[in-house]
Amino acid sequence: MLHLEGKVNVLAAIEARRRRIQVVLVKHDLAADKSDEVLRAAEAANVPVKRVAGAELNAMAHGISHGGVMAIVMPMERWTGEHLLNHLRESSKPPLLLMLEGVDDARNLGFTIRTAEACGCDALMIKKHLWDFDETEVARASSGAIERLPMVQFDQIELLNDLKKLGIRVVGCLAGARRTIFNTNLKRPTLLMIGGEKRGLSGAARQIADRFVTIPSVGGASSLSLSHAGAIVMGEALRQRQPKPLDV
Amino acid sequence: MLHLEGKVNVLAAIEARRRRIQVVLVKHDLAADKSDEVLRAAEAANVPVKRVAGAELNAMAHGISHGGVMAIVMPMERWTGEHLLNHLRESSKPPLLLMLEGVDDARNLGFTIRTAEACGCDALMIKKHLWDFDETEVARASSGAIERLPMVQFDQIELLNDLKKLGIRVVGCLAGARRTIFNTNLKRPTLLMIGGEKRGLSGAARQIADRFVTIPSVGGASSLSLSHAGAIVMGEALRQRQPKPLDV
Repeated sequence: MLHLEGKVNVLAAIEARRRRIQVVLVKHDLAADKSDEVLRAAEAANVPVKRVAGAELNAMAHGISHGGVMAIVMPMERWTGEHLLNHLRESSKPPLLLMLEGVDDARNLGFTIRTAEACGCDALMIKKHLWDFDETEVARASSGAIERLPMVQFDQIELLNDLKKLGIRVVGCLAGARRTIFNTNLKRPTLLMIGGEKRGLSGAARQIADRFVTIPSVGGASSLSLSHAGAIVMGEALRQRQPKPLDV
Repeated sequence: MLHLEGKVNVLAAIEARRRRIQVVLVKHDLAADKSDEVLRAAEAANVPVKRVAGAELNAMAHGISHGGVMAIVMPMERWTGEHLLNHLRESSKPPLLLMLEGVDDARNLGFTIRTAEACGCDALMIKKHLWDFDETEVARASSGAIERLPMVQFDQIELLNDLKKLGIRVVGCLAGARRTIFNTNLKRPTLLMIGGEKRGLSGAARQIADRFVTIPSVGGASSLSLSHAGAIVMGEALRQRQPKPLDV
């Protein structure tokens, strides 16, 4: 069991209905305008609510931004490679996937989940041995997006070969690559791979990549943080996938 | 006086030569491969170096990532509106400026400085009364970019009118705007304004804006954090400003 902090996260969990919520905790004297929405959502979803003292919430919380609303929940179930392949086989639009290697902290992961959802990604992939994050922190930074965006936790890099067989192009982001992200077609089925800030993509990931791209930033792509490089790359996919062709 | 933490930040400060560095502090027994570069740079710039105990650094540091290298420095001098106008009058390329309203913490500001530099911004503008950040934290998240990207601290929103007189288009990012950032010309002289995650742009900023744009994200632009919305917006400016026209 773990907990979620803040109205945005708790509401997202209730509404997504993708994980079990043991109880929603609301501060005794919380003003109605700050609790109403959560109380209504909990009732509609048959989730029990318990009124507790503010001190109790503070003692449990990691941060100071819970605003009197928390929830005790089960961890999010993660997708396996098999889940992902099944989802993709049934998908009617060209998939957009993001794979992260070397995420350095829970906040950056949470922010990236949030951006990935906003940019229309189907799922975020992380290798199993890299998954060692405080889910409360991830959820907080994701601003609820973790409740909706599927997270794929996989063992074998060979999963990428299965994705390629489904017609997905594996695009590795690499400082110094000759081609830029801006002149790569991202409208077609695409997996974007981003490595850690220090070491970049692993050798295994590079071996499988169909092509490499860079963000032609001033001073090189290494000057961007992982989550912000991710935002630029996914933002470019979002741009290319806009309904009407855009001329600028 | 304040301090900088970590090799990247200290090296950036020494090399940029834009602020006074009182002393560089290096842990007594730091391995040569971790200290050499800093020691050489300090010597070349005539900055004194002091060897200290690791415990002394730990006591002073905010984070745990200083890696045995810190520096005691003066705060960065910020540009006034007048500085900025003078810089722009002499600029040979179409300026790109970013103005932030409602930055919520030092880390997000630091990350945005880093992204702004990487995307070729000339300067980052913040209203004076909003400037209340721990500069050590800002510097750390900026990964050295704060030493190089001019920060403009201004009092009067009327500065924006002076910018407009220089031919700069003031573009406000606003959830729900009809036009998207992707079909706005950002090659011409541009000031991008981004508001806080909760309240968006102030009324005063909206009054002055020449146009409004949105990031057409899934779930609306409000689903992005300020620094990641900034990355997508500045990344689009970077794309449009690439030397060769790109067809995707």
